[in-house]
Amino acid sequence: MGWNIYLSGEIHTDWRQRLIDSCKAHDLSIIFTSAVTDHQASDSAGDLLGVEDDNFWRDHKSAKVNAIRTKTLIESCDVAIVRFGDKYKQWNAAFDAGYCAALGKPYITLHNEDLIHPLKEVDASAMAWATTPEQVTEILKYVITKE
Amino acid sequence: MGWNIYLSGEIHTDWRQRLIDSCKAHDLSIIFTSAVTDHQASDSAGDLLGVEDDNFWRDHKSAKVNAIRTKTLIESCDVAIVRFGDKYKQWNAAFDAGYCAALGKPYITLHNEDLIHPLKEVDASAMAWATTPEQVTEILKYVITKE
Amino acid sequence: MGWNIYLSGEIHTDWRQRLIDSCKAHDLSIIFTSAVTDHQASDSAGDLLGVEDDNFWRDHKSAKVNAIRTKTLIESCDVAIVRFGDKYKQWNAAFDAGYCAALGKPYITLHNEDLIHPLKEVDASAMAWATTPEQVTEILKYVITKE
Amino acid sequence: MGWNIYLSGEIHTDWRQRLIDSCKAHDLSIIFTSAVTDHQASDSAGDLLGVEDDNFWRDHKSAKVNAIRTKTLIESCDVAIVRFGDKYKQWNAAFDAGYCAALGKPYITLHNEDLIHPLKEVDASAMAWATTPEQVTEILKYVITKE
Amino acid sequence: MGWNIYLSGEIHTDWRQRLIDSCKAHDLSIIFTSAVTDHQASDSAGDLLGVEDDNFWRDHKSAKVNAIRTKTLIESCDVAIVRFGDKYKQWNAAFDAGYCAALGKPYITLHNEDLIHPLKEVDASAMAWATTPEQVTEILKYVITKE
Amino acid sequence: MGWNIYLSGEIHTDWRQRLIDSCKAHDLSIIFTSAVTDHQASDSAGDLLGVEDDNFWRDHKSAKVNAIRTKTLIESCDVAIVRFGDKYKQWNAAFDAGYCAALGKPYITLHNEDLIHPLKEVDASAMAWATTPEQVTEILKYVITKE
Amino acid sequence: MGWNIYLSGEIHTDWRQRLIDSCKAHDLSIIFTSAVTDHQASDSAGDLLGVEDDNFWRDHKSAKVNAIRTKTLIESCDVAIVRFGDKYKQWNAAFDAGYCAALGKPYITLHNEDLIHPLKEVDASAMAWATTPEQVTEILKYVITKE
Amino acid sequence: MGWNIYLSGEIHTDWRQRLIDSCKAHDLSIIFTSAVTDHQASDSAGDLLGVEDDNFWRDHKSAKVNAIRTKTLIESCDVAIVRFGDKYKQWNAAFDAGYCAALGKPYITLHNEDLIHPLKEVDASAMAWATTPEQVTEILKYVITKE
Repeated sequence: MGWNIYLSGEIHTDWRQRLIDSCKAHDLSIIFTSAVTDHQASDSAGDLLGVEDDNFWRDHKSAKVNAIRTKTLIESCDVAIVRFGDKYKQWNAAFDAGYCAALGKPYITLHNEDLIHPLKEVDASAMAWATTPEQVTEILKYVITKE
Repeated sequence: MGWNIYLSGEIHTDWRQRLIDSCKAHDLSIIFTSAVTDHQASDSAGDLLGVEDDNFWRDHKSAKVNAIRTKTLIESCDVAIVRFGDKYKQWNAAFDAGYCAALGKPYITLHNEDLIHPLKEVDASAMAWATTPEQVTEILKYVITKE
Repeated sequence: MGWNIYLSGEIHTDWRQRLIDSCKAHDLSIIFTSAVTDHQASDSAGDLLGVEDDNFWRDHKSAKVNAIRTKTLIESCDVAIVRFGDKYKQWNAAFDAGYCAALGKPYITLHNEDLIHPLKEVDASAMAWATTPEQVTEILKYVITKE
Repeated sequence: MGWNIYLSGEIHTDWRQRLIDSCKAHDLSIIFTSAVTDHQASDSAGDLLGVEDDNFWRDHKSAKVNAIRTKTLIESCDVAIVRFGDKYKQWNAAFDAGYCAALGKPYITLHNEDLIHPLKEVDASAMAWATTPEQVTEILKYVITKE
Repeated sequence: MGWNIYLSGEIHTDWRQRLIDSCKAHDLSIIFTSAVTDHQASDSAGDLLGVEDDNFWRDHKSAKVNAIRTKTLIESCDVAIVRFGDKYKQWNAAFDAGYCAALGKPYITLHNEDLIHPLKEVDASAMAWATTPEQVTEILKYVITKE
Repeated sequence: MGWNIYLSGEIHTDWRQRLIDSCKAHDLSIIFTSAVTDHQASDSAGDLLGVEDDNFWRDHKSAKVNAIRTKTLIESCDVAIVRFGDKYKQWNAAFDAGYCAALGKPYITLHNEDLIHPLKEVDASAMAWATTPEQVTEILKYVITKE
Repeated sequence: MGWNIYLSGEIHTDWRQRLIDSCKAHDLSIIFTSAVTDHQASDSAGDLLGVEDDNFWRDHKSAKVNAIRTKTLIESCDVAIVRFGDKYKQWNAAFDAGYCAALGKPYITLHNEDLIHPLKEVDASAMAWATTPEQVTEILKYVITKE
Repeated sequence: MGWNIYLSGEIHTDWRQRLIDSCKAHDLSIIFTSAVTDHQASDSAGDLLGVEDDNFWRDHKSAKVNAIRTKTLIESCDVAIVRFGDKYKQWNAAFDAGYCAALGKPYITLHNEDLIHPLKEVDASAMAWATTPEQVTEILKYVITKE
């Protein structure tokens, strides 16, 4: 069985690439999916349908276009990895975690120790908490290939 | 029909009380539910089952005890109000919004203009965005009593 | 058992009142619910949260506020009555019918003979087709009280 | 991942072909499905099981045969495109939109500006509104291929 | 908790009354629901919406009106009792049993020994098989009141 | 898309083969599934796990083993064809129809005119009624291949 | 809101009574439900429908009658308490826990420290682990009444 | 159709291998999945994310990592085989059975006669009970290949 893993959260560091590379190095049979990680493209996704003057509606329109992708990919994944970095509000990552929780979709959080307390509700519904992408790879390797 | 409204998010301002009071002033037939809003009690909920040394597990245990309540109340509400203030990470509020979204449970966000951009994914799945508790009351009054 | 009946569609004739009155005349134990039927109030529901310049977003905002009510009431009804009159597009009525169909919620259509052909997909998923509110009352009386 | 897109609504213009062609021109990996778009064949689908005298039952029988196809294809699609033109009642398109909404299936509406007001409930549950097939292609290209 | 019991099947003997009476004699807190058991009224339920010439469509129309009731009551019951007598085809009873099975709704069959073989698939998904209404009462009494 | 069609009901005539052959003659891309149609093998399926003395339990055991197959195949089919012949009780066919109805799985009934009245509830939830396997093929051909 | 708590597992000690008593002492608004806890009555529940010679079928019949009750009560509870004592196999308690887990129904385990290792999978899906009925009462009091 | 069979329970005997081998000998088209059966690896799965001092949390962490796999594989299987041996508590096997029961996923139990009584609730929801892996193979062969 090829596993389908959705990568949610932080887009300003290379955690996705590190995770994908280390999984590849272990020959794991995984399809990785993700939201659009090009920040500017993501913010202007709705502009494809006409530019908005009002900030709220511009964001609204773009966020809905992006949700066509994220909702579809989250619902078809087997496991989600939800990454919280040290910058920005990152409410979309917590939103994805809540979405997974309600669907009964297992997810692993990836964050540093200093975020333990503010992420306690998000971690409480997670199946595991990792601090490095390489740890996530170890877990995925165990889950997917161990006999 | 008596409506059941779940109040999620910020616990450091009086928005819950203002909302409840203004709904009462309009004689709306509403049952309000909420997470435990006593910060200290909430953080130490798990201590009732034995104190933990490790911070992660202390938070984990408390968060799960709190989830017995929040999960049950969210699933039985008709509408959720999700409040984001200007302090703290508030990932639990975004988590609740994602949970509602996946269940198809309508929710209204309550936050200031300066949070529009970081909350765009959360607002994209919301049914409405309000900036004051009194606006939420207006919406609830319209939804519940207008003929 | 008290039945919960949702009344969807046309708001410019008195079919709702005729149905409610004739059900009352037969002492049927029914709770009737409905979208807001005050056209102007319905169109301006979103204005409660701030007025919009752009027509699309004004309609969007109002339609979402109204959906908090209609979605909740449709999901909690036992049977929906979906009325199509001879004016306007009435796509919201067909939308409600599709929503009911997907939920497995039984609905009865109420329309004249001349709408048979354009409503064939909507009627195909309906449990019955009536041409007068009084016929609907007859059906409800039979369904609810016959032994 | 190959995306599965259901095309609902108007059958009297070439929007389906324009959309399919422009997606092909962008090498998008999409399976398109649709209701039967041959008007006469669709209206007489039930005749395969014996001809009916009564108009209502002829339409009913054909609509149910068609629903075997549309229901199955809508439920297995990832995204639906719902097109409203300027002629006919098109209640089946609104019905499909409601069906998608209840299933939590994302859909994009495709219609001109002059239909904004009568389609406000249908647009309120949509993920996006486009005015040309080429815009839909832009959205699909972004959703499916952007990294 | 007051239990809600749906009574499906045979309408030509007094098994419903015997069951209801013996449950009353044991003071069991039960709400009993049922399809319309007046054969003629049931067959002509659709006539309320206009008389049909064609036998198939007359039956179809009546059966759908009856299904508004049976579907709603079966979905809201806690347990169904499905009775098979020694006359008629009784496919509606087997249909109800299949409907319950797919919903995960527990049901008890009530039939004589000579029907064991043809009912083996229906009994295989049942929670119990009884041969007399009084046995069903014994089971309900045990299930509802035993400590 | 390859369609998956489940064939339920009568096992004493050649309707399955006629249907499969005529679909093949039309080059339809269909996977057909079915219950075990070898009557004796079906009745003794449970004997593989030890022979039972009691008739009820022998039938029960076999019916449950058969249900592993039928339940799995019905749940994975796109459309079911439910055949009623002129012999035997055939409650399993009506049970399958009820099971499909509750799952929202479309099904087509296949039976002669003289069974219209006793099958009215089963037909009321069906998408179509055919009298010959060849008619079913016509419907499937239309549903699967018509553009 | 009155909470509905299902008590699963061990029937040979007084933990149920201790829990109910201490909840009563705290004036908690709770409805407690449970399987039949009279061991002999439970084992012979099926005898009400005729005595069986074969041990497997006697147990089977009784277990199914009991499941009418347990399944219905578990599905309607808000929270389950699952108790493991130091005697017997208690597979039914672990079965109930798995049933709750799949339904997304929150449950609390109640067992001594020496059972931690064999119960790790059961505890992994639980919301909390308690060692005394009084601790469970503390949790329920917090969850239900804390503001 | 290739069947997907999940093997749950006992890891200290060779029943999995015997089952897989005998299915292979019959050329059955089956994908077998399973929890990690290396006892030590399974107990220390959580150590990949950092070692825990406290026994409860060590077990908890490992059990959750294992659940990512078991939950995903159980939900995607067609049939589960649940094996109970004569050693250890084996509550995880009963938990899996309850999980399958709530999902409506068919399962077959595999255990000796002396476990009939303590497994009566688990067997009551099973589709079959076998005493040897070879019997399971016989059932799977019948279910998958018999015409």
